[in-house]
Amino acid sequence: MMNNLTPLEPKADKATVRRHNLSLVLRAVHDAGEATRAGVATHVGLTRAAVSSLVEQLLEYGVVSEWGKTSSGQAGRPGTVLKVSRSGPAGLGVEINIDYIAVCVVDLAGTDRVRLVEHVDNRGVEPSEVLARAARLAARAIGSAADQELEPAGVHVALPGLVTGGTVRQAPNLGWRRVAVEGLFAQALLALRPDHRPLPVSSDNEANAAALAELWFGAGTEGVRSFLYLTGEIGVGGALVLGGELLRGAHGFAGEIGHTVVDPEGPRCRCGAHGCLEQYAGQAALLTAAGIDADAGARGVAELERRARQGDPSALSAVERAGRQLGVVLSGAVNLFDPEAVMLGGVYRELMDWLAPAVDRELARRVVSGLWSEDGKRLRAASPLGDAARGAAGAIVREVLADPTAYAERDAG
Amino acid sequence: MMNNLTPLEPKADKATVRRHNLSLVLRAVHDAGEATRAGVATHVGLTRAAVSSLVEQLLEYGVVSEWGKTSSGQAGRPGTVLKVSRSGPAGLGVEINIDYIAVCVVDLAGTDRVRLVEHVDNRGVEPSEVLARAARLAARAIGSAADQELEPAGVHVALPGLVTGGTVRQAPNLGWRRVAVEGLFAQALLALRPDHRPLPVSSDNEANAAALAELWFGAGTEGVRSFLYLTGEIGVGGALVLGGELLRGAHGFAGEIGHTVVDPEGPRCRCGAHGCLEQYAGQAALLTAAGIDADAGARGVAELERRARQGDPSALSAVERAGRQLGVVLSGAVNLFDPEAVMLGGVYRELMDWLAPAVDRELARRVVSGLWSEDGKRLRAASPLGDAARGAAGAIVREVLADPTAYAERDAG
Repeated sequence: MMNNLTPLEPKADKATVRRHNLSLVLRAVHDAGEATRAGVATHVGLTRAAVSSLVEQLLEYGVVSEWGKTSSGQAGRPGTVLKVSRSGPAGLGVEINIDYIAVCVVDLAGTDRVRLVEHVDNRGVEPSEVLARAARLAARAIGSAADQELEPAGVHVALPGLVTGGTVRQAPNLGWRRVAVEGLFAQALLALRPDHRPLPVSSDNEANAAALAELWFGAGTEGVRSFLYLTGEIGVGGALVLGGELLRGAHGFAGEIGHTVVDPEGPRCRCGAHGCLEQYAGQAALLTAAGIDADAGARGVAELERRARQGDPSALSAVERAGRQLGVVLSGAVNLFDPEAVMLGGVYRELMDWLAPAVDRELARRVVSGLWSEDGKRLRAASPLGDAARGAAGAIVREVLADPTAYAERDAG
Repeated sequence: MMNNLTPLEPKADKATVRRHNLSLVLRAVHDAGEATRAGVATHVGLTRAAVSSLVEQLLEYGVVSEWGKTSSGQAGRPGTVLKVSRSGPAGLGVEINIDYIAVCVVDLAGTDRVRLVEHVDNRGVEPSEVLARAARLAARAIGSAADQELEPAGVHVALPGLVTGGTVRQAPNLGWRRVAVEGLFAQALLALRPDHRPLPVSSDNEANAAALAELWFGAGTEGVRSFLYLTGEIGVGGALVLGGELLRGAHGFAGEIGHTVVDPEGPRCRCGAHGCLEQYAGQAALLTAAGIDADAGARGVAELERRARQGDPSALSAVERAGRQLGVVLSGAVNLFDPEAVMLGGVYRELMDWLAPAVDRELARRVVSGLWSEDGKRLRAASPLGDAARGAAGAIVREVLADPTAYAERDAG
């Protein structure tokens, strides 16, 4: 606020104000689930006439639909019920991970309408080949979406690495360095759909996308707005959400909790350093400690879960040990951040029953405020709705909600 | 932005708009150092007439003064030069630390006008007695400020502990638990100055206050807006500044980097846990490792610095070892936050020449983006202007700048 040298009464021109207010009304309808014009007017503080004119435009854009009349619950004559459209613009999310690719189409209401997952080992494969695989899966999803009268407004690609400016700076577990993912993916998709308008492509780190999915579709719906998100995959990804906003950091690389040092003399990590958390609590470390093939992927994790459920001692001790290391590292992050909650996703979600007690014990012991235990259930399993592909699709939906005019202009262009 | 359901054209009432704009003009003058009415009008986007009326009010409040005419550098007739007042309202900051109390009066321009430091061991002393000591020092500072025609608009007290809602929840190194510092301090100050209007008292963690001092008077002036701040004292304090704002966390306890685990089996810390950074890189650990009495305080640190300067091997290895541990812990924090810079204050500032190489080496090795070394000098000594007492005083000055009307109304009341 101190640096906000802006007088009240901004002199925005009429087109800018209208564009802003179109988003305002659209988001009010979106957040309410369903609303009448009168309800929206009250909520956003615009006149009913202004709202009616804005709604006409949103109906034209195809982002809002009318759904009959309300019953006479509210004062005055019954209004027409408005909802965001279940057809038309949608978000397309692509998650490229070490041992799978997932694609998801989400409609404006946030519902998952298409989901395709391909288990495939992407390690040691040329980036262009991996991106071509992802594009093939995306093209299939676009087809299934079209069958449901949905058309992606853009594609957002999530990857396990440092992603900035459309480029993967490094993704140690994929073995990628400096890969222009957005360009390569757009090219691959265009090659598959030569007669279609190219879709705008954006990209992000996969833990960021998963944390945003958690915010939009999981935790956020319970009112948690500041949390630390940790996802156990082959790598250990992390992200920080503060007051409903993802913390990106000065270079866009915040959240890399997987490379917190557990033991400076520990085993060498793919990142080049020694003793990173990933070497103790990543999927491979967990499987190896339990005596399961580290490369068994999703099957291995299912096997570990099965053994833990049966009370197999080496499975339980492997999970408990990883939980202890996670707890020690998380206590440092909680002391630094003081988040409302810590969310565990990826394989940690499946193993939560056996993992959580060890993690919680370390947190209760080491969080200095003493608030960890006092404050109730702060360690939580991430929502099953909160995966990276869904978050990536959600990012596109958010863009449409934030500026429906830009979407409509592109669609008409 | 997504949740900001506010139409443009806010319908603020006239008094609110004027109050906001008074702050706007005052901050424009403050930030520029000196300005004419015409210059301010251009900068903030209000008419010259509006600015003139606002300036008249600020002159009446005593927060702005006129300083003769500009030369004819600018177009049009020369304007009267405006600056923030060098007399009148000021900020009073009090830092209560383990082995000293510091008091500082800062004027509206940010200049340090009174500074008093008392070396005194506050451990094992009743909180009310420590706060009475601090109040005596504050009363002397108020007297010296009055000689310079400065009158504190409030007092801000900074302490080495978890501070929230006017209360120290815990300050392990002082041995305090649940102390209502604001109330006790106000009471002690009132007892010393029974015939004066009571000053509003606020409070914060001392590392927070020091980090804000760094932002306002040190790093901020070099354009660094996101940094991790670490201060070595008897404890190790920390704070995070993101985009020019202090990160407070969900309960107000963010920044506690001193309790990051270096070794889960390490020595017991005052916080109750084991192996915290403080036990490896705090003042006592540093002095002990160098063979100096851990309780020697500021004299001990001066002795350590002298020995390091002379090349004494045990002093150098003590500092190097602490630097290594700091570097390992900081690499985790940098991986999580991706700040622009890391600032080291307190005793670390004095020892920077010998500490920095070890810290920097670990950071270069462990920050995953590989950006640590690429990006130039990101590890920095905190500014000597950036101490907690000054930051606390600065917090009061910021309040006056943010709402001069509230100050004037209280002053008239």
